[in-house]
Amino acid sequence: MKPTKVKNTNPLWGGRFDSSPSRIMQQINASIEIDKRFFREDIQGSKVHARMLAKQGLLSHKEAKAILAGLSQIEKEIQSGKMTFDPKFEDIHMHIERRLQEIIGAIAGKLHTARSRNDQVATDLRLWLRGMIDQLTDQLSQLRLNLLEKAELEVETLMPGFTHLQPAQPITFAHHLMAYVEMFERDQGRLSDCRRRLNESPLGAAALAGTRFPIDRHWSAEQLGFSGPMRNSLDAVSSRDFALEYAGVLSILAMHLSRLAEEIVLWCSDQFRFVKLSDAFTTGSSIMPQKRNPDAAELIRGKAGVPMAVFQQLCVMLKGLPLAYGKDMQEDKAPLFRASDDMALCLSAMAGMIADLKPDRARMALACQSGFLTATDLADWLVIRYKLPFREAHHIAGKIVRLAEKKPCRLSELSLEEMRTVAPMLKKDVLDILDEKTALGARNSFGGTAPSQVKQAIKRARKRI
Amino acid sequence: MKPTKVKNTNPLWGGRFDSSPSRIMQQINASIEIDKRFFREDIQGSKVHARMLAKQGLLSHKEAKAILAGLSQIEKEIQSGKMTFDPKFEDIHMHIERRLQEIIGAIAGKLHTARSRNDQVATDLRLWLRGMIDQLTDQLSQLRLNLLEKAELEVETLMPGFTHLQPAQPITFAHHLMAYVEMFERDQGRLSDCRRRLNESPLGAAALAGTRFPIDRHWSAEQLGFSGPMRNSLDAVSSRDFALEYAGVLSILAMHLSRLAEEIVLWCSDQFRFVKLSDAFTTGSSIMPQKRNPDAAELIRGKAGVPMAVFQQLCVMLKGLPLAYGKDMQEDKAPLFRASDDMALCLSAMAGMIADLKPDRARMALACQSGFLTATDLADWLVIRYKLPFREAHHIAGKIVRLAEKKPCRLSELSLEEMRTVAPMLKKDVLDILDEKTALGARNSFGGTAPSQVKQAIKRARKRI
Amino acid sequence: MKPTKVKNTNPLWGGRFDSSPSRIMQQINASIEIDKRFFREDIQGSKVHARMLAKQGLLSHKEAKAILAGLSQIEKEIQSGKMTFDPKFEDIHMHIERRLQEIIGAIAGKLHTARSRNDQVATDLRLWLRGMIDQLTDQLSQLRLNLLEKAELEVETLMPGFTHLQPAQPITFAHHLMAYVEMFERDQGRLSDCRRRLNESPLGAAALAGTRFPIDRHWSAEQLGFSGPMRNSLDAVSSRDFALEYAGVLSILAMHLSRLAEEIVLWCSDQFRFVKLSDAFTTGSSIMPQKRNPDAAELIRGKAGVPMAVFQQLCVMLKGLPLAYGKDMQEDKAPLFRASDDMALCLSAMAGMIADLKPDRARMALACQSGFLTATDLADWLVIRYKLPFREAHHIAGKIVRLAEKKPCRLSELSLEEMRTVAPMLKKDVLDILDEKTALGARNSFGGTAPSQVKQAIKRARKRI
Amino acid sequence: MKPTKVKNTNPLWGGRFDSSPSRIMQQINASIEIDKRFFREDIQGSKVHARMLAKQGLLSHKEAKAILAGLSQIEKEIQSGKMTFDPKFEDIHMHIERRLQEIIGAIAGKLHTARSRNDQVATDLRLWLRGMIDQLTDQLSQLRLNLLEKAELEVETLMPGFTHLQPAQPITFAHHLMAYVEMFERDQGRLSDCRRRLNESPLGAAALAGTRFPIDRHWSAEQLGFSGPMRNSLDAVSSRDFALEYAGVLSILAMHLSRLAEEIVLWCSDQFRFVKLSDAFTTGSSIMPQKRNPDAAELIRGKAGVPMAVFQQLCVMLKGLPLAYGKDMQEDKAPLFRASDDMALCLSAMAGMIADLKPDRARMALACQSGFLTATDLADWLVIRYKLPFREAHHIAGKIVRLAEKKPCRLSELSLEEMRTVAPMLKKDVLDILDEKTALGARNSFGGTAPSQVKQAIKRARKRI
Repeated sequence: MKPTKVKNTNPLWGGRFDSSPSRIMQQINASIEIDKRFFREDIQGSKVHARMLAKQGLLSHKEAKAILAGLSQIEKEIQSGKMTFDPKFEDIHMHIERRLQEIIGAIAGKLHTARSRNDQVATDLRLWLRGMIDQLTDQLSQLRLNLLEKAELEVETLMPGFTHLQPAQPITFAHHLMAYVEMFERDQGRLSDCRRRLNESPLGAAALAGTRFPIDRHWSAEQLGFSGPMRNSLDAVSSRDFALEYAGVLSILAMHLSRLAEEIVLWCSDQFRFVKLSDAFTTGSSIMPQKRNPDAAELIRGKAGVPMAVFQQLCVMLKGLPLAYGKDMQEDKAPLFRASDDMALCLSAMAGMIADLKPDRARMALACQSGFLTATDLADWLVIRYKLPFREAHHIAGKIVRLAEKKPCRLSELSLEEMRTVAPMLKKDVLDILDEKTALGARNSFGGTAPSQVKQAIKRARKRI
Repeated sequence: MKPTKVKNTNPLWGGRFDSSPSRIMQQINASIEIDKRFFREDIQGSKVHARMLAKQGLLSHKEAKAILAGLSQIEKEIQSGKMTFDPKFEDIHMHIERRLQEIIGAIAGKLHTARSRNDQVATDLRLWLRGMIDQLTDQLSQLRLNLLEKAELEVETLMPGFTHLQPAQPITFAHHLMAYVEMFERDQGRLSDCRRRLNESPLGAAALAGTRFPIDRHWSAEQLGFSGPMRNSLDAVSSRDFALEYAGVLSILAMHLSRLAEEIVLWCSDQFRFVKLSDAFTTGSSIMPQKRNPDAAELIRGKAGVPMAVFQQLCVMLKGLPLAYGKDMQEDKAPLFRASDDMALCLSAMAGMIADLKPDRARMALACQSGFLTATDLADWLVIRYKLPFREAHHIAGKIVRLAEKKPCRLSELSLEEMRTVAPMLKKDVLDILDEKTALGARNSFGGTAPSQVKQAIKRARKRI
Repeated sequence: MKPTKVKNTNPLWGGRFDSSPSRIMQQINASIEIDKRFFREDIQGSKVHARMLAKQGLLSHKEAKAILAGLSQIEKEIQSGKMTFDPKFEDIHMHIERRLQEIIGAIAGKLHTARSRNDQVATDLRLWLRGMIDQLTDQLSQLRLNLLEKAELEVETLMPGFTHLQPAQPITFAHHLMAYVEMFERDQGRLSDCRRRLNESPLGAAALAGTRFPIDRHWSAEQLGFSGPMRNSLDAVSSRDFALEYAGVLSILAMHLSRLAEEIVLWCSDQFRFVKLSDAFTTGSSIMPQKRNPDAAELIRGKAGVPMAVFQQLCVMLKGLPLAYGKDMQEDKAPLFRASDDMALCLSAMAGMIADLKPDRARMALACQSGFLTATDLADWLVIRYKLPFREAHHIAGKIVRLAEKKPCRLSELSLEEMRTVAPMLKKDVLDILDEKTALGARNSFGGTAPSQVKQAIKRARKRI
Repeated sequence: MKPTKVKNTNPLWGGRFDSSPSRIMQQINASIEIDKRFFREDIQGSKVHARMLAKQGLLSHKEAKAILAGLSQIEKEIQSGKMTFDPKFEDIHMHIERRLQEIIGAIAGKLHTARSRNDQVATDLRLWLRGMIDQLTDQLSQLRLNLLEKAELEVETLMPGFTHLQPAQPITFAHHLMAYVEMFERDQGRLSDCRRRLNESPLGAAALAGTRFPIDRHWSAEQLGFSGPMRNSLDAVSSRDFALEYAGVLSILAMHLSRLAEEIVLWCSDQFRFVKLSDAFTTGSSIMPQKRNPDAAELIRGKAGVPMAVFQQLCVMLKGLPLAYGKDMQEDKAPLFRASDDMALCLSAMAGMIADLKPDRARMALACQSGFLTATDLADWLVIRYKLPFREAHHIAGKIVRLAEKKPCRLSELSLEEMRTVAPMLKKDVLDILDEKTALGARNSFGGTAPSQVKQAIKRARKRI
């Protein structure tokens, strides 16, 4: 009895899954639709490898020249869309090798001397990620710049600072934007650390154990812009911690973008109306004629989970893999590409929105009139003026807040007499404390929200870009 | 000062992200490349909606006819690849509506009566997932069948059962395979529960609040094969728990597939050699001429993280979204498609591998000769024969194992005299206990590994498919 | 040279990690601090096992009686805090067995006949989760009841329905609350399916392969309230899909709780003020005297990630484990307990908040005056009144919205003349359409927001609890 | 009608959740059981804050002295277990403040000047994580040392190198261990980058906006060993990217530990028997007398998901939180503590196992005799000797492997004549190539497995510890 035969005639196997074993194997095995994306990096690595082989006498000058010319031609063919890809030839490495054979004949086979797809793919992936990190870093600089430029215009723009989404203390819109400048700067720092760590060359580790050919790994590493060759050949082909680190760094960036996006959605709501986005960053509804939805912000928030999920997928993939290369690791590229594309897109959209958004200063100022934002100022001032322990001052301020709440009015609308029913020692000077604008200016400790502090912060931040 | 302008001339914005705001917005907003995948479901839903509108007098018979004919034409156009897709028209709904307008003119606009993209996309997604569940269910039946057929051939095939990957007790290969039949059957149960729960119709919930048109949601639900209309319009357009549940069910399935794949990788290793895969399910190496790698099994293991990551991505996406529809939810489709495709592919590959694999009975039997697999049998028999408490019997058996370990020999190769140095009461009948094959047959409690039990289990399992 | 020695004198090994190998092994191996939590289930299972052994003649009546009495005594000792736990005895199973030995002597050893910790712990965990599912189900009923009771009071309470957090259409607060009743009802359905699937008995599977003792697994399954014995002994001790399914179901529940919590946080904000929580569910600030923060809602949102992370952790744990039991699986209990406790607490807190919150009807009504909530109604009415295709009606309504936006005024404050500049055919009857309250009542399709619909929905929902 | 009352008498609310609203609120709100863990850091921060206040004239010398003495006393009380913790006082900050009040009276209230729990908890958490990073770094050094010491003994120990778990090429056990030294060194690098980035002081950011008190944040930062004060007060209290980064770094470390643990489990299996663990790192079975399970390795593998899940939980928690502090963030500590403890324990256990394990050199050598490990050597040698393109050489070597496979024998057991049937040009010198030991020595490219290379690698690695 042969179950394979039974299976292939079985209707359950049917539909688009009526494939023969070899078809299924090809489908699950081929990665060309994914990895063709780094054909440039693959050819770059192959060229350096060929030149190194020539330098070491493993290729004749003529052979090397033919190989280099062939590779250049293939690069052009792929760039111009002339290359046909076929799952039969599994991956980008095989496609290029096969095409090289067509162009220059059997010499093509010499390119694979002292090299395996295991070290080749690790090299390609590191080169590609390095390029992506450089792009994301530039985009982060642009985003920081847009935030700074917007902040410069809003140093005096009063807005309620929230904790627990409840009014807390008066801050400025500039101060709020500058918090994100800090976050995105740290994201750049993480990208930079990740870049440094992954910028080592696996090339020459061969399948897993190094090679008997007298290669020069230091030279090829240098030619590819790596800081040097990796020190252990097994590690070179087996490790993907750099991919995990990259996904982790992108996840943190996504989290920051998502927090800012959440705020933009809130600020655009009818209840807040703190900012307005132009038509360029809003969309309408197919059913509700009045709608102007902040779709870009929502999509940034909605895409936050992408790198986070990629981090998890890679964790699951690598979790218990014995050394050295396992085929499981082929599944690392698609998620890395996806997370990269989405984050690049989100950074562009966020930079665009920040440049686009118009704060509604009047609405923000109005919002500062409720929520008793200067209650802390009152408490702090009681400490300074009457040398009260803070806890006692906090207690008195709380009572005065309740007074205003009952009336109801703003703190600054209470009369001195009313306040004295709670705290008889109060004098007229207390009234100066309760104005939001004054309170703002007073909070001028280092890093505080006072316009004087924020102006300096912006200046310093500009220098760091 | 206009930061937007600055931005667009700034080189940092450059490369492929030098897009104008509207380009970026289009890029991040358009979902057509993803959602065109359920054009069939979209057209199916639109047809039922049109017929319902006609039934309720909201469309004339003639209008409905024109719309239905137009939709049929569009379906054919898309199927045959004639439709051109353009990110400008955002999504599949707009593409179809716009094309309908080209074909039948302004009447096309009447199709959108009493409907919004919010209830439309929820309907499409549920229909698509329902279809996918049906396919995966069929594939699971096929996989169970292949396991059963393989098991039927191996009811007597002795193999070491492992715990902690250490030899534990003798089992049969059939018994081992049947454990997976149980797991995959529960996976089908979960898919079926998920199907039942998601098979409700959001159609007619409109944007979020229902509609003033006298529609018949029960009728359209029935026509689409749903069990009925969803009971709350806000819930209908806002909820995606069905998508999470689906991703969760696929994650569990992926975990089962991955465990079996791990075992196949182990069994194919040179150290185990319990099974052999044919060339159809192995691949070679570009550098090592002798290799036959179990790539398909590794890839199934490597893809296990895909639905798990999708589950997490959807969790992150939905976590704190206020009602009703938020644009974030547009990001649900790509991951669901991805997880579905990968699991469909993995099920095919696993079914193929199971049919393909050939157990090496001799190697498995040989493996049973080490690891003292019948030590438990000895202990159990001491309990039965001498009424010893199990703990004491366990202790004696442990000592006899140490005896064999020192010699070193198998338990069954110890002489009665040697065993008596540990347990003087032992008689000749102890020797019958130590044979692995006998031990196997004795373990005939319900669900146990005895061939008699396993034969019945297979028979019952066949009936349940 | 003996590295172990070097290691133990090495200062790096120091601090609290200066443990000897055996200490470390004990620390990482012992699970008693975690699994003592299901001592009741363990004793329950042991009692049934003892009775089954007696029934089958594997224990004498007297032995069984002694064992049962001993177990009862131990249960009381643990309940009253008299049992001392010691990591030396690894887990709850060993603690109970050891104590039983102290109490009744060597007979205690007979309890372990035809049983292993592998089937024992699987039995305990299933029993414990079954109990937890029952509790969570009750809590969900309570939450649904509280939502219903609140909804009954607010059937006429106008509030803006949002999509994209932008005003969309008028709905009622009751309709909004009822959407969550639907979600939580599906959560109960998932719990119930999960309960049914896990409610099978692993007891008697022994270590992995069943047993040679003539046990009665059907009887013990029945005694423990299971639907029957599991059909494959390897599956019984190796599978944890039930734990994953449970964590998945809790993740979906957490997502629903988090969405509602997000809305409560928004509604309590100074900008919305749609609802008010009493002091019982808000807290103050140590620095800001005026604060009333909706901490409970924030904490529910903050805990949403707990079961999601547990799902992930269990996925990672199980991903590539060969059969049968692996020690890795010991790590399943702590996360399951954690997710259970947090969800139980969140359900209580949410039920409490729902009962506690007071909607501010005036604020909600006021909010309906902006955002042009009846624009859809206008478009729909144009379709009905003038037989316009919806798309054209949508276009006209959009123009009228722009008119009102410019003025600025509400739609219902536009004069007929003003509207006629856009649509000259309009008559006086259009004015009736633009009132939010009227619009609300008109949306009476099945599941719609019209009070008549919602009243029926509440009535039906009450019956289903 | 008052639903709250109904609720409290409702039996569904029952069981251990029959709590009054205030009880529930206390349960969900209190964090003392978690955050008491960083009492040392909290007191350390308070002392520096008090000294800063005195330096700035905000406290008198006498007041400061009293506060410092009080804090020292409290530290001792907590350390010695004398402090009683009560959920009523929410968290560690309140407990210490309250106790200080008992000891020194109202002056205690002055400590809270210019400070909020928001900046206080951020300071505590950073200090605690910094200490934990230092500990983990030490533990990693110890682990690297143990690996190095083991590697030094095994530089000549031949073992099969695997890819896809199939025999690939001969390597040494030392080379294999050294791959992990590289991985763990990168883990240390990530910890160090994370430490640098989080080592900034939030102290003085107060609630969210800074303070009007003339504080000196630079001074207090320096006193606490921070590199300086954080530059934006909102960022200081709102950001938790440092916690995410830490969890990400631990996840990568866990992945590396898990890979090594997986290998140990494989190596200890009866099929491999490459290494042996002593009794110190194995455990027995309650049912199977012969078992010696590598539990510690399995538990390390099983705990790998812990930091990965923590990363996920923190992502979900932070994903869409508006600035500044939200109560959701209280949920960050428990998972961070958990991941830290588990990783510390796993590092100890792994260091212990590495020191403990004994490679079985004979078994490893034996394993090298199958799998045709020198097939690549043959191909490479054909390239060098006959100037064949690698692809052609690969083809010939493949044919010779098939020859040996058929016979069956090792490659080195084929006669020259037999090989010549495939490749007639072969001479006697080919026979030298096929020995595994020779092949090993030949692979001496930088980072390769040749003993000469590995010796140097070990020497360099020792210097870097």
